[in-house]
Amino acid sequence: MSPTFVAPDQVIEALQWRYATKSFDPNRKIPAETWAAIEQSLVLTPSSFGMQPWKFFVVTHDGIRQQLLEHSWKQRQVVDASHLVILAIKKDVDEEEVDRYMHSTAEVRQAPLESLEGFGKVIKGFLANPQMNVNEWAAKQVYIALGQLMAAAALMGVDACPMEGFVPPKYDEVLGLTEKGYASVLVCPLGYRAADDKYATTPKVRYPLSEMVEHID
Amino acid sequence: MSPTFVAPDQVIEALQWRYATKSFDPNRKIPAETWAAIEQSLVLTPSSFGMQPWKFFVVTHDGIRQQLLEHSWKQRQVVDASHLVILAIKKDVDEEEVDRYMHSTAEVRQAPLESLEGFGKVIKGFLANPQMNVNEWAAKQVYIALGQLMAAAALMGVDACPMEGFVPPKYDEVLGLTEKGYASVLVCPLGYRAADDKYATTPKVRYPLSEMVEHID
Repeated sequence: MSPTFVAPDQVIEALQWRYATKSFDPNRKIPAETWAAIEQSLVLTPSSFGMQPWKFFVVTHDGIRQQLLEHSWKQRQVVDASHLVILAIKKDVDEEEVDRYMHSTAEVRQAPLESLEGFGKVIKGFLANPQMNVNEWAAKQVYIALGQLMAAAALMGVDACPMEGFVPPKYDEVLGLTEKGYASVLVCPLGYRAADDKYATTPKVRYPLSEMVEHID
Repeated sequence: MSPTFVAPDQVIEALQWRYATKSFDPNRKIPAETWAAIEQSLVLTPSSFGMQPWKFFVVTHDGIRQQLLEHSWKQRQVVDASHLVILAIKKDVDEEEVDRYMHSTAEVRQAPLESLEGFGKVIKGFLANPQMNVNEWAAKQVYIALGQLMAAAALMGVDACPMEGFVPPKYDEVLGLTEKGYASVLVCPLGYRAADDKYATTPKVRYPLSEMVEHID
């Protein structure tokens, strides 16, 4: 059965409505059901070979968010937004991780592990390429998650502020990510815009579609 | 005025419905209005500083798509899908590009160019960092575009297949991207799944949400 799809206009209106929220309403929290969907949208993100070389940390602890603020170039979104997500890579993905993924695939698809041998070999070969920087590859996948997150949140009417401007080693330290084998790549506070955020009404700057999309037909 | 938002359940249903489509119905084309919205979703993607270091090439030319197929590890989606998008970085983004962006911002926001001087300097400082690989930075932004594209297409009921598995230098050659100052990073055929694509009903493999999302509260 197909889901109920959304009219193209409605999708674009939501993407037009979104902007990098500079000032969040600190009193407005994202309802539980909506938040659960946002977490699901992260987990459902497609990735290279489906490997999901990531983890998402959701920080609601005030004290920890205050500590993170010190490493966020004074961007108060980190403390004022309803929820704060840190998008992290799983570091140094290796053959063992591929095997883990093959086991997970075999289980979900109720397929014999042997039937996945070829697929596992392809991924291992890909990772073993000497030109391959596995952590950069993983970081790129995390950017897909950010893109899906931005769109999903906007469609649900949730504001967000994608951030590269923070100090990843400090975040890793405060959150204890290094010991866990992760490294922070992106940060995204989510919640609802403050009534007085002037950026909400500042026109969005985009090069014209005619310059950014070229048709070869 | 706020747009009409979508219920969280409905967003998740669409993201669950999507999958990396292996077999497209070659006879079913994406309607013009829907396609226009997909192009808009690309252009509306957020990027680092809003710099949009990218361009999107839409190939509908059959002969060129046949040529690209040869450099796509035999993935027939490249020729069978309704539309084929190549997501490319703008290569070697430099200070001149920052100035161009500042001009565009001043124009859209009807602000004096001088008021953007500080912002421009921050971006130039960022790009001048010796640890900075500007093309890698641009490539990551393109992955955000892919993520937003995946979500937007799914919400509209359009199938897609995100692809890293192609030969970028060959694509660049066939499409003449190098002379234009671009380099292909990702490919995405879009259209409608074939009735017999067995992958449409293969269970989606994702690690459990409880493993992929950690709460710090």
